[in-house]
Amino acid sequence: MEIFDLLVVGGGPGGYLCAERAAQGGLNVALFEKKALGGTCLNEGCIPTKTLLNSSKMYRHAKESEAFGVTVEGVTYNHAKVIERKDKVVKTLVSGVGATMKSNKVNVITADAKINGRGENGFLVEADGKTFEGKRLVIASGSETVVPPVPGLKEGLESGFVVTNREVLDEKTLPENIVVIGGGVIGLEMAYYFASVGVKVTVIEMMNKIAGATDAEICKVLTDAFVKKGMEFKLSSKVLEVKNDSVIYEENGEKKELKCDKVLLSAGRKPATANIGIETLGVEMDRAAVKTDRHLCTNVSGVYAIGDCNGKLMLAHTAYREAEVAVNHMLGKNDEMRYDVIPSVIYTDPEVASVGFSKEAAEEKGMKVKEVKLPLSYAGRYLAETEGGKGFIKIVVDTERNRLVGCHMVGSYASEIIMTATMMVDTELTPTRLQKLVFPHPTVAEIIREAIFHI
Amino acid sequence: MEIFDLLVVGGGPGGYLCAERAAQGGLNVALFEKKALGGTCLNEGCIPTKTLLNSSKMYRHAKESEAFGVTVEGVTYNHAKVIERKDKVVKTLVSGVGATMKSNKVNVITADAKINGRGENGFLVEADGKTFEGKRLVIASGSETVVPPVPGLKEGLESGFVVTNREVLDEKTLPENIVVIGGGVIGLEMAYYFASVGVKVTVIEMMNKIAGATDAEICKVLTDAFVKKGMEFKLSSKVLEVKNDSVIYEENGEKKELKCDKVLLSAGRKPATANIGIETLGVEMDRAAVKTDRHLCTNVSGVYAIGDCNGKLMLAHTAYREAEVAVNHMLGKNDEMRYDVIPSVIYTDPEVASVGFSKEAAEEKGMKVKEVKLPLSYAGRYLAETEGGKGFIKIVVDTERNRLVGCHMVGSYASEIIMTATMMVDTELTPTRLQKLVFPHPTVAEIIREAIFHI
Repeated sequence: MEIFDLLVVGGGPGGYLCAERAAQGGLNVALFEKKALGGTCLNEGCIPTKTLLNSSKMYRHAKESEAFGVTVEGVTYNHAKVIERKDKVVKTLVSGVGATMKSNKVNVITADAKINGRGENGFLVEADGKTFEGKRLVIASGSETVVPPVPGLKEGLESGFVVTNREVLDEKTLPENIVVIGGGVIGLEMAYYFASVGVKVTVIEMMNKIAGATDAEICKVLTDAFVKKGMEFKLSSKVLEVKNDSVIYEENGEKKELKCDKVLLSAGRKPATANIGIETLGVEMDRAAVKTDRHLCTNVSGVYAIGDCNGKLMLAHTAYREAEVAVNHMLGKNDEMRYDVIPSVIYTDPEVASVGFSKEAAEEKGMKVKEVKLPLSYAGRYLAETEGGKGFIKIVVDTERNRLVGCHMVGSYASEIIMTATMMVDTELTPTRLQKLVFPHPTVAEIIREAIFHI
Repeated sequence: MEIFDLLVVGGGPGGYLCAERAAQGGLNVALFEKKALGGTCLNEGCIPTKTLLNSSKMYRHAKESEAFGVTVEGVTYNHAKVIERKDKVVKTLVSGVGATMKSNKVNVITADAKINGRGENGFLVEADGKTFEGKRLVIASGSETVVPPVPGLKEGLESGFVVTNREVLDEKTLPENIVVIGGGVIGLEMAYYFASVGVKVTVIEMMNKIAGATDAEICKVLTDAFVKKGMEFKLSSKVLEVKNDSVIYEENGEKKELKCDKVLLSAGRKPATANIGIETLGVEMDRAAVKTDRHLCTNVSGVYAIGDCNGKLMLAHTAYREAEVAVNHMLGKNDEMRYDVIPSVIYTDPEVASVGFSKEAAEEKGMKVKEVKLPLSYAGRYLAETEGGKGFIKIVVDTERNRLVGCHMVGSYASEIIMTATMMVDTELTPTRLQKLVFPHPTVAEIIREAIFHI
């Protein structure tokens, strides 16, 4: 039996990048993936949704550009074609990952993998009827949709009346109306997609606001934009039951029924750590999450856990970085994970992007902070390209340490701009130093510069 | 006579920001502007063109989104409405600058200003029939279109057959076809605008490539995209004469004639320094440009020159930064101008953005460099949103000093992404340090991260 330097269980963003970097570092690596390389992100998450959202943007631009001097007589949207294109994009990227694995000489085993304790020379993984042994083991098993114990939900999933982020991306026809259970980021992006292309959308959310931990003022701008698109929100509302063609929920203590063609379940995700044999190694868990330290080590020496399965921040780019930190630990390189400078994005229109602390979160940590809030209309490009836009930026400054600790934006290009703010927070340069950076004019990014001069 | 701490001649981006920062620093400032606050950039340059280009983008999205599942019937483009909207955007921004001047207690004198030597207490400026005296003087007189000595050109400008960047932005109707003299950045943006909305465009350029100093491979991608849009290029060609309804030019030693409805003259800009009395102070010039050092000081103590009039880099954001450096010098704050980390952008589709050295320029400076070139299709978002895109990134690394010295991109969001690369070049962090930054996924910006791992 060949003994590998490293076994990686799970071929999502964390797993495949871990395999790639480890192989580049000279390790002999086996990567196990039961479905498709790229995991949830590439096959059922980030990438497919962005493909759909981009098509819906083009549709909106065609339909809603009268203020910009563009009028159309008739616009049609071909959802089936969009799904077909999405499949092509995903296929291209999945095969790209495959090619990268091949060129880095990573052994990819496309099969269900089960961890099975230790052998003479390392950790054992069984897959495809064979046993693999590795000196190190990375658990990168990802996450799965939470299915709350709501009567009728399981049956709805079986009949196809209820879908998750996975199935919804393969539906070739648009429903006339859809109920989305859960107003978090994932649910919102798909809800916004449907609303953009003419589907009647109702979002039921238990909290009193959408978009999870997103800044409340940003959520207000988002909600207003979504309502304008025809979306309805049932906030502080609880789903009681899913029937054959409707959802029963409670709003203000009242029991109500919503008839619909389809239900999208998006009530959160949890680490996918059951039934893969983690217990055979005595790895410490925190409920479903594998417990890890700042080097992504578990309590068992030589075993790491990266990506959604450690339950830290369920974002593909967190997994990327965790993969690198874990590999650097294996290779004896100085590195460690920071979870406080990881950007996040919501890809609706307007876009939302955020990094670091909010004012409230910083104050909770005991920092003395100052918040600067400016409308994006201070940026000439925003005004040139947007009609009646309500976009804004907030930056949060630790006044004692004289450094930027957070940035929160809603508006055009926020997704691509946030990296500049991320670098500012990460590098801990003083505002005086940051003022000397030259931003290209006219860009929406200039709003960061403007905000820094307003500290 | 009131004696000012500072007189600023010219209310463009350099001038008005200089006045603002100086006032914030406690100086008593008078700002002279003969036309409209915001100067060329805001009234006849950056902002109006971006308003037009944005409308043409919406038009393209409406017309050309079949691959994305969107089909339209009967698309019409209302150029007059776009010009009207542009006027509104410019008006909003100009009055915003006015409000900023007011709130900072800057005295704005809307009149032609003439420098007139020295008085007892400082430099003298005459405007609006009055004489103003200031302890310091900033020349921020901007630039003007170069009118080459081509027979018929002057007459064409007088008759309106030939227009510059100024008049072209006020034309309420689209020509059927237009000849653009000059394939530099400014000419290209307007040329692309016209081509996008159905005007037949021919660009005559003396050099053997378009877009000035832009990387040759990027120019190839641009040229191909422009030709696909129906634009024609006459490269290595010289305009010999402008007639009533045509342009005579020489191509490959052959004299040719191009009939057209309109000619856009865009053969470069030069410092606008004539007839404003600079000579009364003995300020040293380099042809039309005011000579300045790294603090924006001229040879005359107390006299500064910022923005286009010093002929360094004719970009609004260069002027912004120069304004700040000059004010910091006045206030005794440690600062100096760096011209090697100033980003530049071309706002066509695809967009082009660039900062720092090209491989060739770095080698000319004696650096040992490595260039990494990657297609943007390595970024999942680019693939998700683009069909057949030819975008790419090039980063240039000084291998001896182990730092990034340049970044050059063509593709979507380049304008907003380049700031991240600018910060990398400016902060001089090592590639190993840069690898630890977490980029949001999926973004096109991630291509920078990818490139850094390919060094």
